[in-house]
Amino acid sequence: MPMTNAFYAQSGGVTAVINASACGVIETARKHADRIGNVFAGRDGILGALTEDLIDTSKESDDAIAALRVTPSGAFGSCRYKLKSLDTHRREYERLIAVFKAHDIGIFFYNGGGDSADTCFKVSQLSAAMGYPLVAIHVPKTVDNDLPITDCCPGFGSVAKYVAVSALEASFDVRSMKKTSTKVFVLEVMGRHAGWIAAAGGLITEHGIPVVILFPEIEFDPAAFIARVAAMVKEHGYCTVVVSEGCHYPDGRFLAEQGTRDAFGHAQLGGAAPVVASMIQEKLGLKLHWAVADYLQRAARHIASATDVKQAYALGERAVELALDGRNAVMPTIERIADEPYAWRIGVADLANVANVEKFMPRDFISADGFGITDACRRYLAPLIEGEDYPSYAKGLPVYATLKNAAVEKRLPAFHVG
Amino acid sequence: MPMTNAFYAQSGGVTAVINASACGVIETARKHADRIGNVFAGRDGILGALTEDLIDTSKESDDAIAALRVTPSGAFGSCRYKLKSLDTHRREYERLIAVFKAHDIGIFFYNGGGDSADTCFKVSQLSAAMGYPLVAIHVPKTVDNDLPITDCCPGFGSVAKYVAVSALEASFDVRSMKKTSTKVFVLEVMGRHAGWIAAAGGLITEHGIPVVILFPEIEFDPAAFIARVAAMVKEHGYCTVVVSEGCHYPDGRFLAEQGTRDAFGHAQLGGAAPVVASMIQEKLGLKLHWAVADYLQRAARHIASATDVKQAYALGERAVELALDGRNAVMPTIERIADEPYAWRIGVADLANVANVEKFMPRDFISADGFGITDACRRYLAPLIEGEDYPSYAKGLPVYATLKNAAVEKRLPAFHVG
Repeated sequence: MPMTNAFYAQSGGVTAVINASACGVIETARKHADRIGNVFAGRDGILGALTEDLIDTSKESDDAIAALRVTPSGAFGSCRYKLKSLDTHRREYERLIAVFKAHDIGIFFYNGGGDSADTCFKVSQLSAAMGYPLVAIHVPKTVDNDLPITDCCPGFGSVAKYVAVSALEASFDVRSMKKTSTKVFVLEVMGRHAGWIAAAGGLITEHGIPVVILFPEIEFDPAAFIARVAAMVKEHGYCTVVVSEGCHYPDGRFLAEQGTRDAFGHAQLGGAAPVVASMIQEKLGLKLHWAVADYLQRAARHIASATDVKQAYALGERAVELALDGRNAVMPTIERIADEPYAWRIGVADLANVANVEKFMPRDFISADGFGITDACRRYLAPLIEGEDYPSYAKGLPVYATLKNAAVEKRLPAFHVG
Repeated sequence: MPMTNAFYAQSGGVTAVINASACGVIETARKHADRIGNVFAGRDGILGALTEDLIDTSKESDDAIAALRVTPSGAFGSCRYKLKSLDTHRREYERLIAVFKAHDIGIFFYNGGGDSADTCFKVSQLSAAMGYPLVAIHVPKTVDNDLPITDCCPGFGSVAKYVAVSALEASFDVRSMKKTSTKVFVLEVMGRHAGWIAAAGGLITEHGIPVVILFPEIEFDPAAFIARVAAMVKEHGYCTVVVSEGCHYPDGRFLAEQGTRDAFGHAQLGGAAPVVASMIQEKLGLKLHWAVADYLQRAARHIASATDVKQAYALGERAVELALDGRNAVMPTIERIADEPYAWRIGVADLANVANVEKFMPRDFISADGFGITDACRRYLAPLIEGEDYPSYAKGLPVYATLKNAAVEKRLPAFHVG
């Protein structure tokens, strides 16, 4: 590959470690300054490529780029914008190629989940069809852990650690108050379709905590659930419920969307936890508390998994090496070698096999009754939350990087997105 | 004081550092084994004293007691049980004295908030009246930070740190998604009457984050609030709202209790965050997310403030020293010597001046518009979240202590509480 510039964009919901992947990409590219000129980043993700709103990462010091490794969120901005089919929206794909061409970009790094893997794949196809030499590499990222082929997804291990630590701490709290106060604590976690994040709550049963998990993969059965909670409280005096935002009834209706209204009849924004809590209170009359972690869980860099941070960085690093090897339309992956002691290496997947495939919890990771995890699941999850990787602190708060994000001068006419 | 046993009980809602105070009490008592025989702990707080359900802490190893310093929750159990007036419930106070007498207990350490300070004071009065020699010492604890005289309360600094760190991380998340996704993030925090915890969210404005705070001390004005959020989003493209659970309308009605019902007409358990979120969505049509931290915030030992841990321990330690000095009906306090560099020492307050006094945010700690904090407030808060004090981890999770909590043999007839 001749000397070329690279383009890097962050896609979809951000995580505690997506910037660690960015750090891996940029630091590795800087080591190969003889072959990669500049890394341009998309401002607000792929939108920045479409609107030619590029960020000049060469204006950031080595220290600033190194600080990305410990900074949560998307340092260049991300977006929820899925490029549609090549047939109906060919204009957008052609615009991407035009922008790449205008800025001598021969490498496209797209850091995201399933949708961005799909986009990355289509861009590689089109560039080949148009005769524009481009190497398109997808860097995996998603807290949902739902990408195929890779053993796990960067972002997930840190959310899993946050959920396990938080559930453990709150459970200790409830345990100490159970005599006269709260008997049930309900924690709502992310995972619209896959229950990986909720499963992490099951790791605390090894600490003697009674936990009931509600997975998206298991249709919600109110009577069975209430019976399970009642049995746990009878045996232990308290219990913790971890409910996935994707938990739903057999007809597909989410618990979080059961038409809650305030006294004036206004629709209330959902939340599975308050619904579950109300149900327990009504059926069992137990005092309870509930929490909704929402963004706190995916942004919690302060309690990131060291394993996750390492993998996120390594995937960014390998993405650059793959590009330098001319490997087009691929995604570096995590390959598990052993559970304990945990060992892993970086593999490579063809994007053709990644795009549009969602990976759910295997049924044998969920206990027979549907409310817990199995030992197989524990063996899978345990290494992913292993290790701490603390940011430094100043005045009591983590030192997180805010980049300059200097704009690259535009060379093309404006483009209207959408 | 002749050789005597001591009794220690945890009261009310537990915190990330109340066990650090227990650690301070027990370790210091063990250093004075010539004067303090055993420290008995109340199982489930003061209820354990009434029912003569005492825990023999001498059965715990030095390592187990040392581990309390890093363990959140109440290691001996706590309870929400307020002893009522001496006039109407003299029987309960007399029972306490009887249990103390039966187990040669001459020192009473009560670790809690305003209510327990009141109980502690009454017990000291009654024991004097009954001629039973007892030294009653209150050890302050409350995440609400609402005790008088002491500059701050153990438990508060760690919640404040949790809220500031979490709000910072989630704000970074929203900032990176604002172009196409979430514009407003709402975080609900504790504080039924006092806005100290919500105020901690204001510390992140120094990191360039636009924050709107809703305090219990300021009557909720929907129009002014919506205008403030709209202005923030217009200027910054996003903003973070920190709402105290105690936020209420001028008529006293809590936002969290505005009669939310599900589609079937069942009352839903409250939450101020979803109410605020719905309001913003309805008035401004902005995409938003909300989180309710609930117990996660007060249990979050993993991100405890080192200052808070140190003070919690020191207050427990000084409580024992005060007892050995025969100082009855007092509470060790934190006295601030300087803001920066922060310096503090332990003072002593008479319980007569502590009981039944609640400390709210001074008006000059809240900005003129009622939605933020002032520099004076920042100077007050900043040192309280200073420093990290990490637990050790095994298999990705914090190592928290679960004690044996061996029972002391009962010597008295059973007692019916209530």
